[in-house]
Amino acid sequence: MSLLVVGSVAYDTVSTPFGRRENALGGSATYFSIAASYFTPVSVVAVVGEDFAPGDIDLLESKGVDTSGLERAPGKTFRWVGEYSEDLNSRETLDTQLNVFADFSPTLAGQHRSTPFLFLANIHPVLQLDVLRQMEPRPRFTALDTMDFWIDGAQDDLSRIVSEVDVLFMDFGEVRSFAGEGNVLLAARRIQGMGPRAVAAKRGEHGALLFDGSSAFAAPAFPLESPVDPTGAGDAFAGGFMGCLAASSDTGPDALKRAAMVGAVMGSFAVESFSADRLSGLTRDDIAGRFRQLADMTRFHDSGGNDLPWRNDA
Amino acid sequence: MSLLVVGSVAYDTVSTPFGRRENALGGSATYFSIAASYFTPVSVVAVVGEDFAPGDIDLLESKGVDTSGLERAPGKTFRWVGEYSEDLNSRETLDTQLNVFADFSPTLAGQHRSTPFLFLANIHPVLQLDVLRQMEPRPRFTALDTMDFWIDGAQDDLSRIVSEVDVLFMDFGEVRSFAGEGNVLLAARRIQGMGPRAVAAKRGEHGALLFDGSSAFAAPAFPLESPVDPTGAGDAFAGGFMGCLAASSDTGPDALKRAAMVGAVMGSFAVESFSADRLSGLTRDDIAGRFRQLADMTRFHDSGGNDLPWRNDA
Repeated sequence: MSLLVVGSVAYDTVSTPFGRRENALGGSATYFSIAASYFTPVSVVAVVGEDFAPGDIDLLESKGVDTSGLERAPGKTFRWVGEYSEDLNSRETLDTQLNVFADFSPTLAGQHRSTPFLFLANIHPVLQLDVLRQMEPRPRFTALDTMDFWIDGAQDDLSRIVSEVDVLFMDFGEVRSFAGEGNVLLAARRIQGMGPRAVAAKRGEHGALLFDGSSAFAAPAFPLESPVDPTGAGDAFAGGFMGCLAASSDTGPDALKRAAMVGAVMGSFAVESFSADRLSGLTRDDIAGRFRQLADMTRFHDSGGNDLPWRNDA
Repeated sequence: MSLLVVGSVAYDTVSTPFGRRENALGGSATYFSIAASYFTPVSVVAVVGEDFAPGDIDLLESKGVDTSGLERAPGKTFRWVGEYSEDLNSRETLDTQLNVFADFSPTLAGQHRSTPFLFLANIHPVLQLDVLRQMEPRPRFTALDTMDFWIDGAQDDLSRIVSEVDVLFMDFGEVRSFAGEGNVLLAARRIQGMGPRAVAAKRGEHGALLFDGSSAFAAPAFPLESPVDPTGAGDAFAGGFMGCLAASSDTGPDALKRAAMVGAVMGSFAVESFSADRLSGLTRDDIAGRFRQLADMTRFHDSGGNDLPWRNDA
């Protein structure tokens, strides 16, 4: 089934201990749609400026991404400048120029309104809600990503849209702060109590915890020899996750677990280069191979705890 | 097979957001031996002072722990005072009184020298090496834990003993700083290059990564509803890990993976109370039940990446 993402397309200037890239294609909708494109048809709704390079549209279209919802507005494309710490685990925003993104108010075209799988990438929660209201019929499965900025500054708006989605993607710390609960398990349960069936708590190099109903599933992160730039890893995770669900049209508990593994795989590729260089050049063998490696990382000879080697004399 | 641990027995005064306990039984050898006691006969070599309560010896002996190597020296037992942060992820040492532990120089009794499985808990690396030298024959399997204090202050001594062990237990950050390499995968490989077959990189609420030969295994942490005090979790992890290996007498790659899962189980119990209250009162059903829950957290319908739902039209 097809998948719609509403989010940002940006030009990022990123410094990491492994180099620097200026004005490279980025944005949540970019990483998400490229990651999802391997699995299912995906349409992007976003806004870019007059400076947006035709080659970047070509890149998305070469991945089969439907860019008919990519609005070109007078002005410049959203720009972000950031710098990562030595261990890549934290980053500082040096500059943000919203540009055309400041007035982004997505109006969905007719053909996009009935998309069955919807991903609301990190934009103002009021816009996220507005997009959901434009969908007709209501999507079969909706997921949402957000960030600390909205948790701190638009908690009520965020709570309203969160109550209407199936899966919420958040960083570990964001799960805690949004729920106002320091224990991540209790925090996830509190958020599930607001409406979402599942919470995908991302934790960078430590993988992700998927709380789905009453179960918890731990997807490991793939340990990378040569990480380059974590920008977009979370969006690529969500893209792999949602692309995989939409493709199989299965949203059962087992499907969500596999989707989390595929998300971890796609997130790991995003980190291996600046921009979407690596993410956009993958083969099915690349993806399936890493999926196998990731699955190997948690597989062990498990006979359900029935053969634990208890002490004989106790 | 039997297991020997050389480490500390202490009285801890711990404050966490969930309460405070004064002068409670603690120390690496305590948590380790109690965790291991469910799986295999374990002997403790440590030193305590004249103030050590007979009831605490009774507790260890009630778990079948051999305390014949618990030396009682003139003076007071090692005391530690610490306070944990709101999220339990960091702690501050408020006071350390080494007392009798300052002059701890373990001399192994004859019956302990031939123990086939040895755990060198966190003490000065020179003492760890001295203990290993007293073993005759050389243990079949030796593991070591340490801390940032020795990494920073006794790097050469630590490197020497590390080169002689089979498994090194360290926190994630310690793996990086000991190896002088920010990438944890490369850091673990560098340490493996020094001698150890495996590195168990612990990461608190994010579980542990076991690097064994060229493979990586991710053991999740069990998400706790009511964590109380993380003190001793790493030692309980090591106790479950080594106890499980010693019990089955199997140290193959599969055995190490299961041992890491058992370690994660025992570590989680340690966090559920102050001191070893919870850890020392477990049944086999408690342990096997949580092992099953933990195994469920990473199990998914995996057909090796061969049935990923690829896009049809791509």
